[in-house]
Amino acid sequence: MESIADIIDILGTIAFAISGVISATKKRMDLFGILIIATVTSVGGGTLRDLLIGKSPVTWLLNSTVYIIVITTIVGIIFRRQLRYVRKSLFLFDTIGIALYTITGVEIALLVNLDPVICVALGTITACFGGVIRDILCNEIPVIFRKEIYASACIAGGSLYVILHSYGVSSGINAVISGFVVVLIRTLAVVYELQLPSIYSKAEREQD
Amino acid sequence: MESIADIIDILGTIAFAISGVISATKKRMDLFGILIIATVTSVGGGTLRDLLIGKSPVTWLLNSTVYIIVITTIVGIIFRRQLRYVRKSLFLFDTIGIALYTITGVEIALLVNLDPVICVALGTITACFGGVIRDILCNEIPVIFRKEIYASACIAGGSLYVILHSYGVSSGINAVISGFVVVLIRTLAVVYELQLPSIYSKAEREQD
Amino acid sequence: MESIADIIDILGTIAFAISGVISATKKRMDLFGILIIATVTSVGGGTLRDLLIGKSPVTWLLNSTVYIIVITTIVGIIFRRQLRYVRKSLFLFDTIGIALYTITGVEIALLVNLDPVICVALGTITACFGGVIRDILCNEIPVIFRKEIYASACIAGGSLYVILHSYGVSSGINAVISGFVVVLIRTLAVVYELQLPSIYSKAEREQD
Repeated sequence: MESIADIIDILGTIAFAISGVISATKKRMDLFGILIIATVTSVGGGTLRDLLIGKSPVTWLLNSTVYIIVITTIVGIIFRRQLRYVRKSLFLFDTIGIALYTITGVEIALLVNLDPVICVALGTITACFGGVIRDILCNEIPVIFRKEIYASACIAGGSLYVILHSYGVSSGINAVISGFVVVLIRTLAVVYELQLPSIYSKAEREQD
Repeated sequence: MESIADIIDILGTIAFAISGVISATKKRMDLFGILIIATVTSVGGGTLRDLLIGKSPVTWLLNSTVYIIVITTIVGIIFRRQLRYVRKSLFLFDTIGIALYTITGVEIALLVNLDPVICVALGTITACFGGVIRDILCNEIPVIFRKEIYASACIAGGSLYVILHSYGVSSGINAVISGFVVVLIRTLAVVYELQLPSIYSKAEREQD
Repeated sequence: MESIADIIDILGTIAFAISGVISATKKRMDLFGILIIATVTSVGGGTLRDLLIGKSPVTWLLNSTVYIIVITTIVGIIFRRQLRYVRKSLFLFDTIGIALYTITGVEIALLVNLDPVICVALGTITACFGGVIRDILCNEIPVIFRKEIYASACIAGGSLYVILHSYGVSSGINAVISGFVVVLIRTLAVVYELQLPSIYSKAEREQD
């Protein structure tokens, strides 16, 4: 079980790093800029979670994540033009990645005995804020604030995890079920192009 | 006394959350984006203060602030069109909010025995940086860097608190006096449209 | 030795603060905004490093850096128009500043027994992220992500420091040698207008 989680964690790191490479090359950043954006996208969410709960040094200072990111960035830059052909595989990694990051975040928050709602929030932050910081560094309004069911999938899966946890479901089974819910909602959202119901009237949207 | 401070704290949280809702709906964010911006506006300043002084977990992970923000955001979205009619009440909440946040920040910094100037800085950060992070996430140059006497009111009230504290004034009386100074300066600034003296020459401003 | 490092540290703080004043006045910020940008540019990198490794309160809350920044900002605003004539001296301060900040960051990371690559990363973060946060607050894509050999000089010098450290070279001598490498690479890069090799094809660059 542990080793599967490790492999998925690495795949998630790679997927996030590649999404950083894609964003950074679109902005014509140099090698160093691309590496930073890839790193921030991969570790930003977990770093913010660690800072908020007071875990230090933050996780990525203590493991080999940074090596994976450097290698991914170099490979990503070399095969930059081919990245568009693997977009579907990327989506798969990314979706599994946010599922795993959500569960990891919720689990760490539960260990510190935080309020259930806060645990779900920290899971969602772990999964989503790498992308938020990536977008800020690229001088864009974070994409997850505006469209797509992305964070919502994390909130749903994270909430399920907290509920099953309160019923005593073991963490392994819980992670599989709740993680699957994240993947399912996110996949359905992309396949059927679902969005959160708009709160804006037709008139307001036409102003834009 | 404690319960009045609690009520004012809640009003401040609500005022800041609503200012987040207003900013986020202007940028046509979705439900999730609006909730994040409301949260960040409310808790961003206190979070940065807690991180800088090493208080962890940060305050809002440990109390019910997040529930107040969620409810405020939902109500704020529903009555979004009416928000303009309550702008004056909002201004009142916001002003009382920054006064209270400033005093809270200064008090926490004094407890850690930091330098007086640093205490004033941390009070100002507590009151103002939620709005700064809100503006960054909305891809704007933070409004308080450019106009209005907002931070200056916090600096004045925070400095007064530190001075009275050094003369042994009790924290309750000190909070009322120094908080009132923040409210007074901020209100006068808005009523008389005061700004910090411009450092730019006429020629420079005409270039813009 | 200690006192020379202190003087260079102060010169670095001043140089970074002035670069903040220059950025902020270009954006026509008010006095308060300029002061914040100057502060963030000076202490942002070290603050991020301290947060990541869990050192709290962060360094600048405990020393007199903030006084140096306030004075520099006031003097910088008054002599704003003359700043262009001292650009070369500024470059010198800034270059010595990033060299010193890099070494300081690497040393602190080595003390916490972090992985060599992480130590270099933390040195580079210390030297470069003040400027990154400055650019984000000014609503620009961070300049070091796009051009100039700046971070690369820090990475080179930081790596050399870690290598020499592993061979038992004393920290004083190591700091002088590795710091000199940062200054040398940065100076050569500016004098000969060197950039990192572009990863973009001519066709891609013409699209922009």
